[in-house]
Amino acid sequence: MDNASAAADHAATNSAAHGADPQLVTLADIRVAADRIQDLVLRTPIVALPHPDRPSDVLHLKAESLQPTGAFKLRGAYNTISQVLDESRERGIIAQSSGNHARAVAWLAKRLDLRAVIVMPDAAPPTKVAAVRALGAEVVLVPASERDSRTLELAAEHGYVEVPPYDDVRIIAGQGTVGLELIDQLPDVDVVLVPISGGGLISGIATAIKSLRPEVQVIGVEPELAADAAESLREQRRITWDTTLTYRTVADGLRTPAVGVHPWEHIRRYVDDLVTVSEEQILTAVRHIAVEGRLVAEPSGAVATAAWMHDLAPRGATVAAIVSGGSVDPALMARVLAG
Amino acid sequence: MDNASAAADHAATNSAAHGADPQLVTLADIRVAADRIQDLVLRTPIVALPHPDRPSDVLHLKAESLQPTGAFKLRGAYNTISQVLDESRERGIIAQSSGNHARAVAWLAKRLDLRAVIVMPDAAPPTKVAAVRALGAEVVLVPASERDSRTLELAAEHGYVEVPPYDDVRIIAGQGTVGLELIDQLPDVDVVLVPISGGGLISGIATAIKSLRPEVQVIGVEPELAADAAESLREQRRITWDTTLTYRTVADGLRTPAVGVHPWEHIRRYVDDLVTVSEEQILTAVRHIAVEGRLVAEPSGAVATAAWMHDLAPRGATVAAIVSGGSVDPALMARVLAG
Repeated sequence: MDNASAAADHAATNSAAHGADPQLVTLADIRVAADRIQDLVLRTPIVALPHPDRPSDVLHLKAESLQPTGAFKLRGAYNTISQVLDESRERGIIAQSSGNHARAVAWLAKRLDLRAVIVMPDAAPPTKVAAVRALGAEVVLVPASERDSRTLELAAEHGYVEVPPYDDVRIIAGQGTVGLELIDQLPDVDVVLVPISGGGLISGIATAIKSLRPEVQVIGVEPELAADAAESLREQRRITWDTTLTYRTVADGLRTPAVGVHPWEHIRRYVDDLVTVSEEQILTAVRHIAVEGRLVAEPSGAVATAAWMHDLAPRGATVAAIVSGGSVDPALMARVLAG
Repeated sequence: MDNASAAADHAATNSAAHGADPQLVTLADIRVAADRIQDLVLRTPIVALPHPDRPSDVLHLKAESLQPTGAFKLRGAYNTISQVLDESRERGIIAQSSGNHARAVAWLAKRLDLRAVIVMPDAAPPTKVAAVRALGAEVVLVPASERDSRTLELAAEHGYVEVPPYDDVRIIAGQGTVGLELIDQLPDVDVVLVPISGGGLISGIATAIKSLRPEVQVIGVEPELAADAAESLREQRRITWDTTLTYRTVADGLRTPAVGVHPWEHIRRYVDDLVTVSEEQILTAVRHIAVEGRLVAEPSGAVATAAWMHDLAPRGATVAAIVSGGSVDPALMARVLAG
């Protein structure tokens, strides 16, 4: 399958789940989401990180890694589930993810007393599978290539309510609450750096920020080895990379082969630029965030900081970066810290 | 010198700096401090940490490690300096510390455009000395045993304004703002666990909490290898341990040989109990806080969490622990994470 047809296929699969043309989230949607989710979601702090070479130059980290499940995913998942709570209680919920979305959905299901089925790739690390099971969710292991189709089949067969990972306006509105908080906490921000994978996070943040402060630059950051979004923006069309390419990066949360259909519509309207970082730059950022920011960031969560450290993104007087998650393998973190 | 006379000597030295009998800080003092320091001090978040063996049992971490200088020390230092700002600007400030207090004072001096002299032990790690110098402070290296006396001499000789590390009511009131925030963020807290060394932090927190919610238990935690405070409470008198004993612990922020004179008066009135943790329990807590709480804690910052993990402190429905600092040697953190 070539890139274009793979993209079309991916789009078809994803849109089928919610059966609508791409819609744009509004600031009002994000404000409503903020009210809906505030009882279980942490208003994450802004943590100051000095530049390694220019100590008086400080990056403002929005530490989504401190959410109870270790990543921003809780916001979108909760905003979605809370809108379909009655049917979710009756029929159960289903989600597909190998990582932070799985954990967020399982955690919410436990808190809200819902039955949850999580479809995970059979190559997922046993510790991640165990973590989801420990939260009481049922795990279904399938080959990675069948994740989307098996999830839809199971949902159709059993009537489960699907909680999509990123290609959904409810998810985007939930993730956008990060942007609302950021503008409130750091009103004079000039540049906001956001990790990008499926695109739900940056879509929500860019919508919030451009609605409130159009002059603020919103920049997406992804690994060079999984740079489908940067290529898409350059080519002005949504491009899919094969997972044999995207799975090369250590940033295991950023291996999605293409941004979603709904995110793409937000990204092309609201995002100023997309930049890429190398594997070495990502790991250097993980170390710097730990030593000088005292936060545990996973590689995916460190890409925005990496772009700032290496002057790969536009500079500004007040720059913020989203640390999107902190679920890192302890052995990897040990190697990074040992230097 | 035996313990009792060492204690007396220590008390005399410390009291001399501010020349008054021990005074008790009030809730009003802490509220004023909160106003004074809010422009430069982070309102630190409460981060949820699941128990390693009982996942539904959660500890609420107050992450002081996320302060711009990596520890709570910024609060007391700023509350002190802001009350003597005119003379500090004219004459400069001096502080003695090998760790987080030094960094806080140097950082504040840079922010407030003050001349700062930091007296550090000549055995301090070169990285810590370099970090203080990088902030623009002048470092004076002296033998560890001469730190107090040299600081007083330099202050007398040059007219520097001293910013004491813990034995001062302004410092205690500043640290007490942690307690004010905690009660606001976690109104139904039952038990609060606090690392103890010189005693400034727990004195302020206990004063705030017992004034607002007398039924909440405030428990101090220190290493078994530096258990001077626990012995003091048991004996109902302030006891000094020799530094050849206290320097055995990996928790390098908790090696102070005795709680201060002012802290002692607060501790014996307001603190419910003091418990101790082993070196292994401390390092296990550092690892657990990193992996499940996604926070980098230094060993000193992890002792309260260690007491909770190992059921060494009173249990309650809602338990909080202060993670007091995060300035850990990367090589130590790497070893802890490698397991």
